[in-house]
Formats: sequence, structure tokens, C-alpha cells
Amino acid sequence: MDRILKERTSVSKAKELFLNEIRPFDRTDNIPIRETAGRILASTILAPRNVPHYRRSAMDGYAVRSADIMGASPTNPVMLQVSDDVDEGVCCHLSTGEQVPDEADAVIMLEDTIMIGDMIEVRAQVHPGKNVGDVGEDVRKNEIIFNKGHLLRPCDIAVLASLGIEDVKSYSRPIVAIIPTGNDLIPLEENSIPAPGETLDINSLMIGMYVEKWGAEPRYCNIVPEDRNLIEKAITENQDADFIVVSGGTSVGERDFVPGVVESLGKKLVHGVGLSPGKPTALGIAGDTPVLCMPGYPAAGLVALFAFGKPAIRKAGNIPDIPEITVNARLTGKISSREGYVSYARVILEGNSARPLMTAGAGILSSIAKSNGFVIIPENVEGYEEGNEVDVVLIE
Amino acid sequence: MDRILKERTSVSKAKELFLNEIRPFDRTDNIPIRETAGRILASTILAPRNVPHYRRSAMDGYAVRSADIMGASPTNPVMLQVSDDVDEGVCCHLSTGEQVPDEADAVIMLEDTIMIGDMIEVRAQVHPGKNVGDVGEDVRKNEIIFNKGHLLRPCDIAVLASLGIEDVKSYSRPIVAIIPTGNDLIPLEENSIPAPGETLDINSLMIGMYVEKWGAEPRYCNIVPEDRNLIEKAITENQDADFIVVSGGTSVGERDFVPGVVESLGKKLVHGVGLSPGKPTALGIAGDTPVLCMPGYPAAGLVALFAFGKPAIRKAGNIPDIPEITVNARLTGKISSREGYVSYARVILEGNSARPLMTAGAGILSSIAKSNGFVIIPENVEGYEEGNEVDVVLIE
Repeated sequence: MDRILKERTSVSKAKELFLNEIRPFDRTDNIPIRETAGRILASTILAPRNVPHYRRSAMDGYAVRSADIMGASPTNPVMLQVSDDVDEGVCCHLSTGEQVPDEADAVIMLEDTIMIGDMIEVRAQVHPGKNVGDVGEDVRKNEIIFNKGHLLRPCDIAVLASLGIEDVKSYSRPIVAIIPTGNDLIPLEENSIPAPGETLDINSLMIGMYVEKWGAEPRYCNIVPEDRNLIEKAITENQDADFIVVSGGTSVGERDFVPGVVESLGKKLVHGVGLSPGKPTALGIAGDTPVLCMPGYPAAGLVALFAFGKPAIRKAGNIPDIPEITVNARLTGKISSREGYVSYARVILEGNSARPLMTAGAGILSSIAKSNGFVIIPENVEGYEEGNEVDVVLIE
Repeated sequence: MDRILKERTSVSKAKELFLNEIRPFDRTDNIPIRETAGRILASTILAPRNVPHYRRSAMDGYAVRSADIMGASPTNPVMLQVSDDVDEGVCCHLSTGEQVPDEADAVIMLEDTIMIGDMIEVRAQVHPGKNVGDVGEDVRKNEIIFNKGHLLRPCDIAVLASLGIEDVKSYSRPIVAIIPTGNDLIPLEENSIPAPGETLDINSLMIGMYVEKWGAEPRYCNIVPEDRNLIEKAITENQDADFIVVSGGTSVGERDFVPGVVESLGKKLVHGVGLSPGKPTALGIAGDTPVLCMPGYPAAGLVALFAFGKPAIRKAGNIPDIPEITVNARLTGKISSREGYVSYARVILEGNSARPLMTAGAGILSSIAKSNGFVIIPENVEGYEEGNEVDVVLIE
């Protein structure tokens, strides 16, 4: 099947061409804040009120009129009456966070006073405003709290809650249609031990679970045989999705119809990339819907999904980019790479050592299970030697 | 409230003391593999069968007896009959992945043959085994696929699926009881605009959502007033949980009962840590249940939750450590730190620049909303200057 694919676009160029064609959608949902962790704001949030919305004591102590205790010191204390309100010569007790009465302009710390009956001896002076949190000191009414496009973290949701905001407009999750192709593919449900020559469709499940992890909603489609018309039908039927991933049928064999079908339905941007494994990847637009055609071999498909699917689905779904988790490690063996290809070398990370996996074939299932990171070798680098320091991107 | 807390354990020592007391639990669930993304395996998985479980063609071509075409070359081709079976002088067509008949010992690539009627002209020789994937070549029956304790990624679940495994034994999610304390706290549901002096309990929601993100199950408890007996009752009632987080009441004021209660129910390991913000944090064990007593101020509480809650909940729940997402950036302003304290300085990351946030108070809500990263300053460092390169840990 894998004959000669002559075209070879660089990974960076292919990604640029693809992302340039993707228009983020603008469907939104109104959702209760408790359900918004990981969702993206579709509108800018302004503070509906001041925080604090009252003058707040920053200390345990007494609300006072600062003029009453001007010049007070341990050697020259001032006596104040303690009451429920504040007035000339009269103060009131406050705990941290309590409202400062209007008549007071400062709070004197408990530590600077001595209680004597219903009076206090004040042993320090305070300037006006001391230990008083002003209205809006933390958040000012109508101030921008979060911009449109912000990814909501748990701590952000706590901020929304503290402002009394109960639900927010967030972008809908992008819908990603997953179309597996292949004559020898059988669905996972049907039969757990495939007959010789048959392959279980594990890619759909793998793609779907990653897509979900990235904030999108997978739509699992039926397996499509290697038939031009059926593939065209499957893609056409899913053009209402925000993104389509087709797994398999991307090479240049007689039965590899997928890139041609995408071309006939819109445009083929790239077929064949300098990615190893993952060279037969094709990228295009069917109607208005971006299509990633990834190789059916699990390891190659996974690499294509990470390199092109993740950023593209994110762009389509208004999901901001998050850096990968990367660990610096020392190689315990040599890894080599084909010139002109960005290579995803699978390694086993053990502490600060990265051990290259020997079985690096595109179809080798166990290489995925055994490795926990990729060393991504740029196109212009031939490989790395034992002992080299490398960045290992954890396989999520 | 925040008077003088004399004890000050270093963050690393406090963490060590706490983690040493935590015993991972061993409750498990049997769950279908489709629901296991992010779950932890509670048993080692052996391959139930060989992959491939038949001899598989690695190429499109013809299954042959290698002896039949020994010496074949473009100038000295060998003719073979094409049929459905293989025999002396007879070959059969195979696509990649198809079963190689027992009589064949190699596959000759399509490209090395020319079809002539129902014969092929073979223009290359192959050694025995060429282009044939052996039984168990990828995964051997009874080989260890994943060890106990492995965190299941989507690609791992695809591997399990390909082996016909339908469900696995995984550790149950740890249950984390969240107990908010405070006389002035009111629940989020009750009233969205608190009266002066009242504070909305936003911490419970914030803790709960982080706990869920880390793979645990939050149990939201009612607000407990600042009363020794009621706090004791709340902690005792939740000792069946795997972990308890108490928010508030951890300082040394008259009404800060939490650390004392933990001591009376088991042992107090630490009260007062060299963490800024977050100094009043206390750590202990009530019965057998680890308890994190975190300051009620949102920013301080969040830092304590990240520094102690996350690793401790992970240990209790058998959840392997995952490195934080870290970005290297250049400071656009000075950040300073108190000696003897690990400081979590909040910054705004913009590309490769990290801008320190000025309002860094423990209670300042907006500092959480506005920052997207921490620069963690070690105890023995006084701070960093403008222009310094620093690692910024993204606030998840």
C-alpha cells in the first residue's frame, strides 16, 4: 500500500497551510459556572459589583475616628469608650472582614490596645484609612475580570462565584467526526478476537478519547470500506461537524481514496508530510470543514493527530494553546532520524534518563504502550547521541 | 486573627512529614476500558494473546516459498503461478496485514514482480521470513503490557482494546471531604450578594473542582461555625474519607480551633510553614485520615492546596505524579521574597515575558483571576531582578 508518495511538505508549512484555512466557529452555550471547568469564555466578563462592596476591616481591632487618637503612644495613651457604634471618643470592636461603620475612618489593631472595663486604652495612632479595605479595592465594579477566549480554571470559577455570577456564555464544544476506513477493519464491539487478516478498529476509540481530552466532542462514525463513493458519502454526511478525522486510506495505493475525495469536495492542502512516523498524512477542507486524513497505523496516526489534529481542533473550537509537559532528560542510547523529516522518537523516561525504544515501526502497537514520551527531532538534525540532553514531551 | 505563629517548618520538610504518614488505599473498581482515561491500574496487565496472532504480511505482494525464487533478479527472473494457495512454484497475492499461508515463508513485494496473465515474473529474491510479521512479533502472549499503578492514557486504552480486554481493575477515586469553617461564611447557593461582613464560601467550590481535576471525588460538607465541638464533629464524621481539607480557622486567633482539633483526634504534624502566601497551613492526621488545614484567604489557600494538597491526595489515591507545565520566561519587573519562605509570586505570562502582579495579598481575589502562572522562589533566594530568566509554573 505504502508505495511512493512523492510530495513532502514540511511539518511547519503543512500546519501553517492547514491552520490558515480554519475559521473558529461561534456557537455558544449558557452554562452554570459549576460546569465550566476547562470551557472557553465566549464573552468578556465585567465585574457586576465592587469587591469588597462595603468598607472592610483588614484586622481584628477597633473602628475609630483617627483624629480621636492622634498622638497616642504607649507613654501617652488615649482612652476610648467601646460601644456598638462609632462617634467622637467612642469606638467599636471589629473582626477581620467586618464592616467598618461610616463614622470611622480607620481600624486600630487589637495589639495596640488594652481593654479596661468598657473602655480601651489606645497606645498607637493611626492615619486615616489605616486597616480599612476600601469599596472596590480588590475588584472594581465594571472592571474586566476575564476576556473573551479565556480558558476557565477552577480558581477562575471561584472568582466568578464570589462576584455572584451564576452562569456564563461559553463556546460550545467543537464536534469532531471520526471516520475509520479499511476493508479489513472490524468494530471493537462486534468481535474481540479478529480473524486472521482482520484488524480491530482501535483508532476510533483512541482519537475519540484524545478529542474529548482536548475539549471537543467526538462523533463516532461507522467503518467505511475502501470505496470512493462510500468515503465521499461519509465525509459529505459529516460536513456539519466542526472537524473531520479520517483514519486510514491516505497512502498512494489503488485503494487510498481519501485524499482524492477531500480534493473533490473542497481542496487538498497537503498530501505527504515530512513527519516520521506519519508521512502519508493529508490535510484539506471539505466544503468548509477541515479534514485530517491520518494513517491507519496506530503509532503513525497518533503522531499525525498530535502534530496536526490537536492544534487544528483547538483553533476550530476557540481553545487556547496550552504548552506540552516537557521534561529534560539524558539519552541512554542513540536515536537517529531521516533528514527532511520531523521525527517523533519514542522513549521511556525513567527519572532523568530517556531510553530510546528499539521497535519504532509505525504499526508497532507495543511501542505506544511502552513509551511515555517523544523526543521530537527537527528536520535539519540527523539524530542525537547517547548522553545528549534532550527535551522529552510526555505522551498525554 | 493572624497574630504570631511562632513555628515555621520548611515546605520540603512539611511535605515529607505529611507524605510519610499517608498510606495509599487499595479499594478498586472494575471498569469498562472506555471509562478508564486518567484512571490508575490496580493490577498488572498481561497480554491475553499474541499480536499479531497470525503470520501477517508486512507488504502488498505475493506469499512465496523463498527457495522457489532463490537467485531471481531483473536479468534472471523466475516465473510463478498465481493461485489461492502456496505450493512449489505457486504463490498467492496478499495485501498488507493479510495472513501468510502456512506453506509460504516470505512475501515478495509487488514492486519486484510483473504480472503476466495468471503468472508473475519475480525479479528479486527474498530470504526466509522476509516481509512476514511473526506471531507475537508486536506483543507476546503473557508479556507485561502495563504495570500496576500505571495511569491510563487514551493510547493505552487503544492498546487494551486491541488485545480484546474489555474492562480492567483500577483504583477507586479517592474521596476528599471538604470542610469550610467560619462564622461569617455563607453558602454560595443561599444568597449571591453577601451582607457586609459576610463572605461567600467560594473555597469549597474551588477546592472541589481542583480535586476532581486531579482524579479524586469531592465530598462537599456544610459550613462549620468557629466552634471547637462542631469542628471536631465535622472532622470525625468525615474520617471515612481518604483525605480531608479544612478551609479556614488555621491561624492562632482565639477562634482558630482546627489545628488543635486535629491534634486531639490523631496528630498534628506541622502548624505554620515557610510558605508565602499560606503560612498558617497546618498538616496532620485525624484517626488514619490525612488532614490539610488551609488558610481561608483564597490566594493563600490555593497555594497551600497546590503545595501540599495535590501531592498528598495523589499519594493517598495511588495517582502517579505528573510534572507541572512550566514555561521559561523573562521577568519584566522585580519580585521579592521573604527569606525562609518559599514564595509563590503570581505573574502574568505574555509570550516569553512574565510580568509580576503588584497586588499580591493573600486575600486579594483579583490576583488569582489576573495571573496565569507562579514563579516559585526557593527559601534561600531573596527574589529575582527585572530581566532574570525564571521558570513559570502555569496555574492549572
